[in-house]
Amino acid sequence: MQIGMIGLGKMGGNMAERLRRGGHDVVGYDRDPSISDVANLKELVDRLQAPRAVWVMVPAGAPTQATVEQLGELLSPGDIVIDGGNSHYLDDRKHGEELGARGVGFVDCGVSGGVWGLQNGYALMTGGSDEDVRRLMPIFETLKPEEGGFVHAGGIGAGHFAKMVHNGIEYGMMQAFAEGWELLEASDVVTDVAGSFKSWRNGTVIRSWLLDLLVRALDEDPGLAELKGYAQDSGEGRWTVQAAVDHAVPLPVITAALYARFASRQDDSPAMKVVAALRNQFGGHAVTA
Amino acid sequence: MQIGMIGLGKMGGNMAERLRRGGHDVVGYDRDPSISDVANLKELVDRLQAPRAVWVMVPAGAPTQATVEQLGELLSPGDIVIDGGNSHYLDDRKHGEELGARGVGFVDCGVSGGVWGLQNGYALMTGGSDEDVRRLMPIFETLKPEEGGFVHAGGIGAGHFAKMVHNGIEYGMMQAFAEGWELLEASDVVTDVAGSFKSWRNGTVIRSWLLDLLVRALDEDPGLAELKGYAQDSGEGRWTVQAAVDHAVPLPVITAALYARFASRQDDSPAMKVVAALRNQFGGHAVTA
Amino acid sequence: MQIGMIGLGKMGGNMAERLRRGGHDVVGYDRDPSISDVANLKELVDRLQAPRAVWVMVPAGAPTQATVEQLGELLSPGDIVIDGGNSHYLDDRKHGEELGARGVGFVDCGVSGGVWGLQNGYALMTGGSDEDVRRLMPIFETLKPEEGGFVHAGGIGAGHFAKMVHNGIEYGMMQAFAEGWELLEASDVVTDVAGSFKSWRNGTVIRSWLLDLLVRALDEDPGLAELKGYAQDSGEGRWTVQAAVDHAVPLPVITAALYARFASRQDDSPAMKVVAALRNQFGGHAVTA
Amino acid sequence: MQIGMIGLGKMGGNMAERLRRGGHDVVGYDRDPSISDVANLKELVDRLQAPRAVWVMVPAGAPTQATVEQLGELLSPGDIVIDGGNSHYLDDRKHGEELGARGVGFVDCGVSGGVWGLQNGYALMTGGSDEDVRRLMPIFETLKPEEGGFVHAGGIGAGHFAKMVHNGIEYGMMQAFAEGWELLEASDVVTDVAGSFKSWRNGTVIRSWLLDLLVRALDEDPGLAELKGYAQDSGEGRWTVQAAVDHAVPLPVITAALYARFASRQDDSPAMKVVAALRNQFGGHAVTA
Repeated sequence: MQIGMIGLGKMGGNMAERLRRGGHDVVGYDRDPSISDVANLKELVDRLQAPRAVWVMVPAGAPTQATVEQLGELLSPGDIVIDGGNSHYLDDRKHGEELGARGVGFVDCGVSGGVWGLQNGYALMTGGSDEDVRRLMPIFETLKPEEGGFVHAGGIGAGHFAKMVHNGIEYGMMQAFAEGWELLEASDVVTDVAGSFKSWRNGTVIRSWLLDLLVRALDEDPGLAELKGYAQDSGEGRWTVQAAVDHAVPLPVITAALYARFASRQDDSPAMKVVAALRNQFGGHAVTA
Repeated sequence: MQIGMIGLGKMGGNMAERLRRGGHDVVGYDRDPSISDVANLKELVDRLQAPRAVWVMVPAGAPTQATVEQLGELLSPGDIVIDGGNSHYLDDRKHGEELGARGVGFVDCGVSGGVWGLQNGYALMTGGSDEDVRRLMPIFETLKPEEGGFVHAGGIGAGHFAKMVHNGIEYGMMQAFAEGWELLEASDVVTDVAGSFKSWRNGTVIRSWLLDLLVRALDEDPGLAELKGYAQDSGEGRWTVQAAVDHAVPLPVITAALYARFASRQDDSPAMKVVAALRNQFGGHAVTA
Repeated sequence: MQIGMIGLGKMGGNMAERLRRGGHDVVGYDRDPSISDVANLKELVDRLQAPRAVWVMVPAGAPTQATVEQLGELLSPGDIVIDGGNSHYLDDRKHGEELGARGVGFVDCGVSGGVWGLQNGYALMTGGSDEDVRRLMPIFETLKPEEGGFVHAGGIGAGHFAKMVHNGIEYGMMQAFAEGWELLEASDVVTDVAGSFKSWRNGTVIRSWLLDLLVRALDEDPGLAELKGYAQDSGEGRWTVQAAVDHAVPLPVITAALYARFASRQDDSPAMKVVAALRNQFGGHAVTA
Repeated sequence: MQIGMIGLGKMGGNMAERLRRGGHDVVGYDRDPSISDVANLKELVDRLQAPRAVWVMVPAGAPTQATVEQLGELLSPGDIVIDGGNSHYLDDRKHGEELGARGVGFVDCGVSGGVWGLQNGYALMTGGSDEDVRRLMPIFETLKPEEGGFVHAGGIGAGHFAKMVHNGIEYGMMQAFAEGWELLEASDVVTDVAGSFKSWRNGTVIRSWLLDLLVRALDEDPGLAELKGYAQDSGEGRWTVQAAVDHAVPLPVITAALYARFASRQDDSPAMKVVAALRNQFGGHAVTA
């Protein structure tokens, strides 16, 4: 089927490519004219035949908000907007209401797959009405992996909520591997640390894609000497924790993983200055200036 | 090759079976005479041809200690004992020294695979001298999965240390999935929670054997209504945390997962009685008796 | 000076009493006519001489919002509203803007002191313009403890933000004592647990009002046998964590204390059902139904 | 009464001084001859009249072990050794047995008070037999604060166990203040952070000696600019966590505080290298080298 794709970066560009390989007619728009099929959103909408489907794949927050607003003015009743970015589920609900008031449908779609998605397919978590999701199934079928990798998780917002929780789980799993590696490296008991990780890929309880990736990374750089222990966090980890606090759900592991990332980005820990100051005050313990 | 197997329970029995299917000559001993090939350890040792290999697959701690001591008295220089149980790596070193003083070799072997190992193979993490490990390779080759699943991690103790850390990682991963599920269930945004987990098996960052197992469990009982939120912990999780504390390695995620298990077994939280008492003292907040 | 007090419950009633003892003219309003000086807010405003000061001491959220809105319609330019409840600092900013548009001043005031405040004074953390705070100083001077216990923390919202963080710290401290008590009780090494806590009131690093209160509680019920390990959380703990996540500040201790409260209110842990299910799947471990 | 004091450093020296001011006859020994009253332990023992009391105030571990062993050989039945250092409670039991076999008594004594103890007294937590503790009461009475500050917590080891838990609680409280400070500094809502802490000293739930000390530190250096966020940990925090794990007691707050110290001493986080490596592998996220 025909679809407009807004945002042709690392994710959107590859998704457009996978859709084209799957036989779909993709009209792409990007701020970068050298990779864009059309000059602006108006031209994109004009190029698509009603009822239109337009996939928004731009950064969450203000860029997505601005794009959805413009589309609201350009699209016609019966068209559908898909937000495939990393939006907050409450923003989805707002977008759904704004577009719905104009008769335009809205589906949110959490997308996982990263740089591997073009080849292996993208895992898709969708939220929206049965009717809207059904109409887009040809697109979802092409984007998703051959087997599985798709869920219609619930109403508007459910797709990004599911993706948000997926990412929270991902944070916890990554940190679990990270802690295990640090302990093995810190002790001198195990002398073949990389070999241990490699061996775990088969027959163990922890075999997983993340372990496969870690083995790849250790193959390239066994001591990870080339890397700094510095990790960004996307919004989803934070939102997972905040949603949990809203629902009085304890998330000790996911939160610890998020905090470890926060701490990794601090040159010095303000909190630990206080601890150092207190130790100095009551014990006369030397402090490091 | 020929091997003695001590302990023919859920793990040892299946391992003996996999070894026999692989063409090895296994002489099994168990306290339960109905499944034992020999009447006692002495008879086991007599039945084996020197240089012997004896695999100990009994509970860690006192039972393993007692078995190793008896074997030390019964075996001859050149024989090898393998401890495939969940022993602490410091116990391994003690056993290695005790047996070594008699000329008997010692290899520790962490075994992962649970009830699936008979069919899929057991992941093996071994510690010991190159010579001892090499001599036992025919056994390891048969027990391990077709591909990978084996590491000679280092000297005596390294096998159980690697397995200990593996289990620590496992705790963290399990808790990450558990927290994600709780949050999805607590919120009403996602209406197809089980479907979301199922969809994650393909194309996502968190695809893993544990996720496969969780999907199986949710297939059988989508709300896990039949289960109580009560989880035992084996020694390895505790030892991982204690080893980390010894090495000044922060393990926030693995420790949080361990503590969640501790808390799951408490009918009432003593600590939270103190919190309730304090709130009552300073705020006149009602307490629940 | 003259002041209107809205909300004459446990906190507001005692604060009105302390103000009257201090020589102020307090006109109180409460929904309960048996303790109210006036029939409604209109009458309250009429009874006060301009420029008026009205202290709102009602539950945070909708009740405070409704009260501030009504006051906005009833008050005149030059009057001041003080919100002494547990409002979120972002609500303060909204209220400040709404009232400011009508020429009415706004000061937020975090109040600590609980049932002890009438006698010992209330710790006050205020936010607002220098001018507004200065005008209210006679009130603050009477309410606060003889020494200290008052800060003008910053602009509108700063008072509640400071109180919010105070409560976050309080959560962490309470949980620290709680964990120490649980460990002492769980081990049999220390046989005089209550005596140990009592001894800590003098000369130790952890001497504190919370310790004094805990000793009082243990005096009344040494094993806390009369209490259930069940603790509510006020909004401030949650807001502290959410503000920290917004600012990428790791708060492992305060968050752990909050999560312990969440968990204390669960009959069964949904997360631990998942852990139990997984252990059963891979290890055939018995589950508790 | 007469007492021997071994170790005349920051703690032991001040304690000897406080005892002398209290009228006791203190014979001090230190490796540093310039501050020692005697040349060696033998001379110390010779100078004391039987039945002797000897207070050991040297670093925990090997130095204490060596001192206790030497004393065992030099002392006579009826003498008592007090270990006032930061020994592990299991070491106490060992020392108690070794000395007991020779008829020499043993009392362990956890001491809190730091550089303030000389003036304000030392909080003492003791373990040992009723008889031994009773005999030493004149010493304890002089060392402890005027009011409270003393407990006979249980049998041998109970004093150090109580002190260990005291320190665990201390870790949690310090970290709670530290996190609150960091959040206030990270946000721009509160502009008078130091003033907020100062105000909390009166009338609040969190008033405490640690808060007093923090206010002192902030008075000297409001932004703690002179300090690095680097904090050592004494053994007690680690032992608290390890004892909790042994007893299946969840200590999320105390453990988080310990881990924050571990992390504060790392130039780079090995664990976060793994997280960075994984993010790079699956998402092509840039890494920092």
